[in-house]
Amino acid sequence: MRATTIAVADARGTIRLVRSRPSVHGQPAQSMRTIRPLVTEALQAAKVPRGRVEGAGATVPGLVEHSSGTCVLAPNLGWRDFPLRDALAEELRVPIVVNNHTQAAAVAEGRMGAARGASSYVWVYVGSGVGSGVVIDGRLFYGRSGFSGEIGHCPVVEDGPACACGRRGCLEAVASKMAIGRLIDEAIARKEPTSLRPNGGGVDAEALAAAAGAGDAVATRILAQTGEHLGRGISFLLNVLNPEMIVLGGSVAAAGEALLREVRGAVARHALLPHGVAIVPSALGDKAELMGAVLLAMEPTMKSVRIVGG
Amino acid sequence: MRATTIAVADARGTIRLVRSRPSVHGQPAQSMRTIRPLVTEALQAAKVPRGRVEGAGATVPGLVEHSSGTCVLAPNLGWRDFPLRDALAEELRVPIVVNNHTQAAAVAEGRMGAARGASSYVWVYVGSGVGSGVVIDGRLFYGRSGFSGEIGHCPVVEDGPACACGRRGCLEAVASKMAIGRLIDEAIARKEPTSLRPNGGGVDAEALAAAAGAGDAVATRILAQTGEHLGRGISFLLNVLNPEMIVLGGSVAAAGEALLREVRGAVARHALLPHGVAIVPSALGDKAELMGAVLLAMEPTMKSVRIVGG
Repeated sequence: MRATTIAVADARGTIRLVRSRPSVHGQPAQSMRTIRPLVTEALQAAKVPRGRVEGAGATVPGLVEHSSGTCVLAPNLGWRDFPLRDALAEELRVPIVVNNHTQAAAVAEGRMGAARGASSYVWVYVGSGVGSGVVIDGRLFYGRSGFSGEIGHCPVVEDGPACACGRRGCLEAVASKMAIGRLIDEAIARKEPTSLRPNGGGVDAEALAAAAGAGDAVATRILAQTGEHLGRGISFLLNVLNPEMIVLGGSVAAAGEALLREVRGAVARHALLPHGVAIVPSALGDKAELMGAVLLAMEPTMKSVRIVGG
Repeated sequence: MRATTIAVADARGTIRLVRSRPSVHGQPAQSMRTIRPLVTEALQAAKVPRGRVEGAGATVPGLVEHSSGTCVLAPNLGWRDFPLRDALAEELRVPIVVNNHTQAAAVAEGRMGAARGASSYVWVYVGSGVGSGVVIDGRLFYGRSGFSGEIGHCPVVEDGPACACGRRGCLEAVASKMAIGRLIDEAIARKEPTSLRPNGGGVDAEALAAAAGAGDAVATRILAQTGEHLGRGISFLLNVLNPEMIVLGGSVAAAGEALLREVRGAVARHALLPHGVAIVPSALGDKAELMGAVLLAMEPTMKSVRIVGG
């Protein structure tokens, strides 16, 4: 289910209240119309007068052009070239900052999660899609237009499954929630013995890990494949960035240590220098994105977000 | 031919004199012993008294641990865990900074070459090996240990040719000077009609481009393959870093516009967002590395080298 989620945070960045509402695929304008009543409802519930709202941070699972706040492409939402910052400013009448959801999560994880104290790290999201937020020397690195971190569209399987981006074998096409769900469906269609059940094209990663732990051969194989593919993609990040840390978040990463073990094994096989880099789970889980949106809204300048001192 | 090259530069960083001497593969200690007489000779020729030398910058085609100046691995020199900074300090008795050759070239290209004015760019070296120097927001980015930019060891061909790093299908294993030389040798062994001649395992990239331009089918195919592979590797950089610019240097890049056209075509096929990034030849050519070594020696702090203002 797609949803629009609103959080109300205080001046210290602590989230006081969260409200969520389903959103419609491919209808950004319609999503915008649900935002005003949702904000009104959330502020009333939080007992915050509208006039005291100082700003808002929005995140979106797609490419955000940093200078304009335009969502250039969000395949999982069906959005293309939607001027999100302007549309939100129209609705909310406060200063708005718009970021990619994974970039926002990376900021939160560095300030108060698993990457606290690390100065260069990558937050890798594995869920409906695959992406990453790149932090370099204590600052979120946007790249030229804001489109950094698109590790999900690096190929890891030659002539692999088709990806939403139009290419084949991208990391996202083999390691996302949908890709794993498809592997489960295929195993069931082949009548392989497994306790896994299809659940609408997606996957419950915790159930997958539990089944693998209980000796389910299909679950074990899918977990190993997913770890192998993620390890290949993460090895690109290690080779190019030599980061201190990789943080894994998102609904697939919720498979936990069983998946992380496979990822670490694959990184040891594929990275030029796999030693010394910590590959750890997100400490903030599905709160990372909202917390990041709040933190980014509170930054005085968005051009370069300092996450750690020094 | 391996060589140790010494440049004498003035206080403004202008190189006044260059001296070169052959070096022996796998013998770093022996290379060190040739350095003192080479330096003495170069300083005498440049009429610079030894007491006026304020510092030295060294570069090496391998992994340099930034904090210690140790060359951890340089396959093309046959070096492993050699404490280059300490060994040079012992010989020269001046402050020494040691950098990877491609990182140094990236600095020079940003200060006075093709990347002048760009704040985030990658200098990609394609020669005996393949590597890159990553500049982020106007600063050379070293990564945790100094090992950033190792794009040459990202795989671009599944189960491709063996690489010096022990893996298969790495960009370096298919796009380096030696890899291209091997393709030429193989074509000749298959008696394919071509004007190309083997030249000791390497390749004269300008001759390759000239032969392709004259309609030589083997040269045309090798140029297209090399461009395809480089384009795949550069697409990783574009996806992860969203840089303003890619600068191509090294002896293979000397093939010039004929190769760049193929690279740009491959990037258009493989990168998520190929538009807007300039892919240009090095303006400094084989001088980039020495110029970078001089610039890095002149920096007051090496931790974070500012290349552009802002």
